[in-house]
Amino acid sequence: MFFHKQELQFTASPSKPDAVYARRLQEVLGGQYGEISVAMQYGFQAWNSHKPGKYRDLLFGIGAEEFGHVEMLAIMIAQLLEKAPVEQSEAAMAADPVLGAVIGGTDVQAAIVAGAGARPVDSNGNPWQGSYVTASGNLLADFTANANAEMQGRVQAARLYNMTDDKGVRDLLSFLIARDTMHQNQWLAAVAELQAEGTETLPVPSNFPINQEHREFSYEYINFSDGKTAAEGSWASGPTPDGKGEFSYRDGPETSVPMPPPTQPDPRFFGTDAKPNLVDKATGVIKDKLSTK
Amino acid sequence: MFFHKQELQFTASPSKPDAVYARRLQEVLGGQYGEISVAMQYGFQAWNSHKPGKYRDLLFGIGAEEFGHVEMLAIMIAQLLEKAPVEQSEAAMAADPVLGAVIGGTDVQAAIVAGAGARPVDSNGNPWQGSYVTASGNLLADFTANANAEMQGRVQAARLYNMTDDKGVRDLLSFLIARDTMHQNQWLAAVAELQAEGTETLPVPSNFPINQEHREFSYEYINFSDGKTAAEGSWASGPTPDGKGEFSYRDGPETSVPMPPPTQPDPRFFGTDAKPNLVDKATGVIKDKLSTK
Amino acid sequence: MFFHKQELQFTASPSKPDAVYARRLQEVLGGQYGEISVAMQYGFQAWNSHKPGKYRDLLFGIGAEEFGHVEMLAIMIAQLLEKAPVEQSEAAMAADPVLGAVIGGTDVQAAIVAGAGARPVDSNGNPWQGSYVTASGNLLADFTANANAEMQGRVQAARLYNMTDDKGVRDLLSFLIARDTMHQNQWLAAVAELQAEGTETLPVPSNFPINQEHREFSYEYINFSDGKTAAEGSWASGPTPDGKGEFSYRDGPETSVPMPPPTQPDPRFFGTDAKPNLVDKATGVIKDKLSTK
Amino acid sequence: MFFHKQELQFTASPSKPDAVYARRLQEVLGGQYGEISVAMQYGFQAWNSHKPGKYRDLLFGIGAEEFGHVEMLAIMIAQLLEKAPVEQSEAAMAADPVLGAVIGGTDVQAAIVAGAGARPVDSNGNPWQGSYVTASGNLLADFTANANAEMQGRVQAARLYNMTDDKGVRDLLSFLIARDTMHQNQWLAAVAELQAEGTETLPVPSNFPINQEHREFSYEYINFSDGKTAAEGSWASGPTPDGKGEFSYRDGPETSVPMPPPTQPDPRFFGTDAKPNLVDKATGVIKDKLSTK
Amino acid sequence: MFFHKQELQFTASPSKPDAVYARRLQEVLGGQYGEISVAMQYGFQAWNSHKPGKYRDLLFGIGAEEFGHVEMLAIMIAQLLEKAPVEQSEAAMAADPVLGAVIGGTDVQAAIVAGAGARPVDSNGNPWQGSYVTASGNLLADFTANANAEMQGRVQAARLYNMTDDKGVRDLLSFLIARDTMHQNQWLAAVAELQAEGTETLPVPSNFPINQEHREFSYEYINFSDGKTAAEGSWASGPTPDGKGEFSYRDGPETSVPMPPPTQPDPRFFGTDAKPNLVDKATGVIKDKLSTK
Amino acid sequence: MFFHKQELQFTASPSKPDAVYARRLQEVLGGQYGEISVAMQYGFQAWNSHKPGKYRDLLFGIGAEEFGHVEMLAIMIAQLLEKAPVEQSEAAMAADPVLGAVIGGTDVQAAIVAGAGARPVDSNGNPWQGSYVTASGNLLADFTANANAEMQGRVQAARLYNMTDDKGVRDLLSFLIARDTMHQNQWLAAVAELQAEGTETLPVPSNFPINQEHREFSYEYINFSDGKTAAEGSWASGPTPDGKGEFSYRDGPETSVPMPPPTQPDPRFFGTDAKPNLVDKATGVIKDKLSTK
Repeated sequence: MFFHKQELQFTASPSKPDAVYARRLQEVLGGQYGEISVAMQYGFQAWNSHKPGKYRDLLFGIGAEEFGHVEMLAIMIAQLLEKAPVEQSEAAMAADPVLGAVIGGTDVQAAIVAGAGARPVDSNGNPWQGSYVTASGNLLADFTANANAEMQGRVQAARLYNMTDDKGVRDLLSFLIARDTMHQNQWLAAVAELQAEGTETLPVPSNFPINQEHREFSYEYINFSDGKTAAEGSWASGPTPDGKGEFSYRDGPETSVPMPPPTQPDPRFFGTDAKPNLVDKATGVIKDKLSTK
Repeated sequence: MFFHKQELQFTASPSKPDAVYARRLQEVLGGQYGEISVAMQYGFQAWNSHKPGKYRDLLFGIGAEEFGHVEMLAIMIAQLLEKAPVEQSEAAMAADPVLGAVIGGTDVQAAIVAGAGARPVDSNGNPWQGSYVTASGNLLADFTANANAEMQGRVQAARLYNMTDDKGVRDLLSFLIARDTMHQNQWLAAVAELQAEGTETLPVPSNFPINQEHREFSYEYINFSDGKTAAEGSWASGPTPDGKGEFSYRDGPETSVPMPPPTQPDPRFFGTDAKPNLVDKATGVIKDKLSTK
Repeated sequence: MFFHKQELQFTASPSKPDAVYARRLQEVLGGQYGEISVAMQYGFQAWNSHKPGKYRDLLFGIGAEEFGHVEMLAIMIAQLLEKAPVEQSEAAMAADPVLGAVIGGTDVQAAIVAGAGARPVDSNGNPWQGSYVTASGNLLADFTANANAEMQGRVQAARLYNMTDDKGVRDLLSFLIARDTMHQNQWLAAVAELQAEGTETLPVPSNFPINQEHREFSYEYINFSDGKTAAEGSWASGPTPDGKGEFSYRDGPETSVPMPPPTQPDPRFFGTDAKPNLVDKATGVIKDKLSTK
Repeated sequence: MFFHKQELQFTASPSKPDAVYARRLQEVLGGQYGEISVAMQYGFQAWNSHKPGKYRDLLFGIGAEEFGHVEMLAIMIAQLLEKAPVEQSEAAMAADPVLGAVIGGTDVQAAIVAGAGARPVDSNGNPWQGSYVTASGNLLADFTANANAEMQGRVQAARLYNMTDDKGVRDLLSFLIARDTMHQNQWLAAVAELQAEGTETLPVPSNFPINQEHREFSYEYINFSDGKTAAEGSWASGPTPDGKGEFSYRDGPETSVPMPPPTQPDPRFFGTDAKPNLVDKATGVIKDKLSTK
Repeated sequence: MFFHKQELQFTASPSKPDAVYARRLQEVLGGQYGEISVAMQYGFQAWNSHKPGKYRDLLFGIGAEEFGHVEMLAIMIAQLLEKAPVEQSEAAMAADPVLGAVIGGTDVQAAIVAGAGARPVDSNGNPWQGSYVTASGNLLADFTANANAEMQGRVQAARLYNMTDDKGVRDLLSFLIARDTMHQNQWLAAVAELQAEGTETLPVPSNFPINQEHREFSYEYINFSDGKTAAEGSWASGPTPDGKGEFSYRDGPETSVPMPPPTQPDPRFFGTDAKPNLVDKATGVIKDKLSTK
Repeated sequence: MFFHKQELQFTASPSKPDAVYARRLQEVLGGQYGEISVAMQYGFQAWNSHKPGKYRDLLFGIGAEEFGHVEMLAIMIAQLLEKAPVEQSEAAMAADPVLGAVIGGTDVQAAIVAGAGARPVDSNGNPWQGSYVTASGNLLADFTANANAEMQGRVQAARLYNMTDDKGVRDLLSFLIARDTMHQNQWLAAVAELQAEGTETLPVPSNFPINQEHREFSYEYINFSDGKTAAEGSWASGPTPDGKGEFSYRDGPETSVPMPPPTQPDPRFFGTDAKPNLVDKATGVIKDKLSTK
């Protein structure tokens, strides 16, 4: 269950409205790595969790905070849009270059559809979608997804910080960036803890039977490009991070196999190679549906 | 530039057609974490790269291999579909329970749209989309995204391995799982190397100025749920993975701020609270467009 | 801010797993009129609200309950999937008709992608998307959207009730249907209250100036089909619901205007009618970019 | 069957081209509540109708008019785009601030993809999609959806009216706004008529058996937020709009149930909690696929 | 303007309901090459047309017929769904293998969302979308798109014909296939006529200035694969279809250029290569925003 | 298999950065008819091919070149974005009209999400999607789709050529336009060759039995609009392009059939016309689930 309190975790008011910036801020609200994504992602990982205890509690504990961040950003955006211009004719823009600049930079749907309100979309107006959520049921994989989400989110917030000089907006971003620092660290700590206690180890999933894997390809870097320095990294020689092998390097594939011949599906799919002798030229009737050779 | 060779990196032929399984295999071809995703993701990270040398070479070297995996899976799926049933009427299903089972489990568009062919979609028929690709320009964040992609991909391939007993399909999956092991290790090695050489460190992005972050919130776990064990993990006390702080724990937020008052946009957006005295009741004309209070 | 409690508003456990039904239940979790939609919709309406007080409090009060319903359904679905079959080969289905029936009816991504978990998608696997949310800033319009959402949701839950005889699932649906009854009534009460107090009246938006509307078309039913009974309803004669007019009926449009002539954009858009005399036949150079006639 | 006549219901020509406004007008053509949506929605409701007579005739009668509105807007947009600028280089914009303003505000695909033509997309370029259509087979629910669509559409048209001072565009909008007034009234009249004749009543669906609903939750407002005025509305006390109950108010849920324990799916889904004793540590083989506890 | 008549162009009733087939038939209603696509495509091409007369009349003339085909298929699908099963529990399927087969093969949203009705989606439940429409303003290109749409549509209808033995369904498909034959022929005739009268010729667009094209690459087949027979076709030697050149063949590219060096954007994008000397190590402040080298 | 070489087929560097134009160029990279679409389309057609030899070799031979074009455009876009502005506040735009113009015209996600990098999206930021790909298994249909794709692509490139005066960008476009000329010609040559050798002829699919088609409708133009010149084209009289009939012309449909009566699905779908006598008014229980009439 979720309970709502009409307070915010941190101040979320701009110094003054800025409809152009409101559009940009939509990215960290409704974009691929926005707050809706992490709130939903941690929620689904918790609801699908196969283990009670600290990992699930962690997911619930951070997830509920992120729903509050969704709220903070939505409210901030509504305030940034408070003076969104209504008159947007070409004539008005000709008379006022700043207005012209503003028009081009705003989200027109924020005005027409939402009446100067926030929306569950990214900075290009693409609606948020459920496919942004990763919840596989394997915690080491999912916590790595979470660490990535917090990294991408912090990179975006850092970029947004430099796109405004509004003190109120920057103050909120300084707060959110700090929380991204925290959560980035937490998911990496959880990744380490899963491995340390042996609950899950590398490679993920660690309980897939080794004898069902073609191990001769498991630690060999096969370089399909012609980059000269590809062999210099720690990914081409030395021990592997999973502690179970040694990297080796090969310049392109050693062996290959011929392509299998083209398929011959039932002629009633009317592919190009449906054998003509199967069709009675006079009547057009397909004579034999089974023989395709 | 890409050059194509009409050979495959590994055998990709099933023991016998299986249209039901063909649909399942679409997930690792055209799903969120399928081969199209990683091929495109490594490509865009390379094309947007800001550093010449080993990291870009690595992206190109693995990326080109993944385009070949797209091809292997597409060809495997076409073969699995080679005997896809045409007659799919309810009557036919009543007569043949196996056919009925088959019908429900196949991708109907593989038959109707592609004539028993592979398609750039996932196992539910959702088209592959560009938003599956992550390429932020920050290599530590992006390599973490890559590690996650290889982990999710390996989890899915492992599940698919147990959904068939076809020797040919399992053989290909054993190969792909091995490559996922390799690439998972490689991206983690690259993540470690970036940090070891100081090119990028945690938290990502590491060059965001510390004094622009509200540091008092950077290492504090604020638990917004009531999970009793939330404080037990290594994410609630002790040193943080970025080596720059100490985790602390707090049960819910210490302070909060009141919500800002609702916004009052221009009355010509016709929101509910457009002040009625602004409108001349007789004529309906809005008298003053600027004053909203 | 949102706070999470690890309890549920109502029991949400099935009598036994049923992976086929789990897929169906996804509709009221992640479909167009599922719980994610209403939770988000009420949230965005509240965050964009232009009036403090009872209407905004109502949005927050119901919205937070709906986030808890998202959780109840996700957890129910995870339990329904707990025994989701892994072996799904055609051979296995041939041996077990029930398995075959099951396979065709389940969401394959629930198995391959989520490892027997709930996902933010509908019953056909389409990801939930932000465009399901309506929040225009006009409360009478938006509360009508909310009433519709609760009606559609109750219709779907009622259908789902009859697709299972699992006591636990039916118990949860009986609860959710009751809440849909309540919320349907509440939004209709709020629609009535807005009108009774004159905050907003019909037609929506009520403060659009009457003299800017072509009133001669505001209450005339122009029938563009040939249905004989079209004129019999209360929508073709008598007073209008907004209390401002009288319905009249017309069989097709009285007058019409000719289509404007086709457009002639700049020839450098290379439309078919770019006048050939503008292009120097010998050199292919476009001679005059401005004259298009 | 549909028959087309090369005339328009009303004049649809701008006083002069305005490529910036053309983009805005796309919202009421191809947006969520644009003319394509209502034309298709009324069509599908009619085609799926379970009752012959006046309600189906009404759907056909309005639906066909809306297809004509699609045409009027498409033609208007093509004319607004007739002088869409071709040269859009940064240098050109530097030389001409108005051009710069124009560039940012136009739909670039209208130029590049359509050669100065209308497209089935909204004002942000999102393609129109079938999920905008609601057609449940329950007329009271669907007519409420229609009333909402006409309300949202009229709100958007009213906003668009104030974004231009072009006489021709405003003239068309004055006409469309009048038709929205009419159709808004018609659907509300139809909603009332359905109830008056007892064909369908509240709550929707009215024929869901009362004894299958947890009636103790059907009229109780459970406030999950802390808004002080939540209890003041007509939705918290007094008779309910469906005439079947009395509203009551409760501050938060009275009772709750503990979360069910996490699920334990088949270990071959490789979730984190796949019990380790099931896997032979030496060989990696999963020993027992059935026992998961 | 469109006028609706409550009659159909051809009989559209099945011999008996078949919910499994209803799902398949959705493909030619709401799929990429379904009737909604061609109806909308011909409409937008007409509305954007730059030439009055026969070509635009042709677009209107066929377009309006296609809207009627949308209706025929929607009505057919509603009838096929008339006996769609409600009880869909696993137990019910175990008791009745045919029901099990049926369940897996139907569109669950047709039942849950539409109450046994047609929907604007394809056979996998993907909503129809505006991006299926092609309308570039260049008639030769667009008529080629139309010919392709009618070809793909006829292929799909032909496949669907063999997936049922219902006399009523086959009768409708025989009619639609005949219309596809007609329209396929018409668009090809129009393509030929455009060229014969010199309105537009190959290559499209024919009025792009020849001297702005790198003609040395305009007729050379550069083979980037190793297929031995690639040079045997009429596309590798002899005159070109546009009548303006001679095909030549080359095995791979003759020359190539080195990749440009990686980009160095502003360090405030926090890319990996943001030069460290720009950042004050102690304070983290970025010292110089402009120098990136 | 694909092999990558770190060279380009042609120079792909702009004379100077231009972030506004970078957005436009995304259309031919990640739009419906961009390079990703053709690369993937030719790939899937080859992988699904039912014939070995020259046609499949052609698909592979061109397809691999197109993947290289994806790379050229991505790299060009990254360079165009190299000086993408960071500071984008309203104040900054007021001070610098050119900056204002630039801001409105750029893709904000290129900055916020990609850090000045290319992305797999179109010029409006819509992600590339698998539904852009056509691969039906019928080569004559698919090669027509390919010809259309190259035509649309060349039209777009020609328009983009006139939207910039940057020498480097124009040089690359001159090259790509030349390749579009070539590939347009090649697919048309292949279409002709398929027909000349009788592998596939018109109408597509040519092997659908003639006696299963309602031939009386196969060559008759039925004009559903009132365009006076509709009968003048070569599509209304004379021999048909498939060489199998004669066009005839009819002004509207000759005959029609009445609409079938509305459907009566199971009352448990709770449609409006679920007969009331089936429901016990007192208890609300549905008495008889089977009788719906």
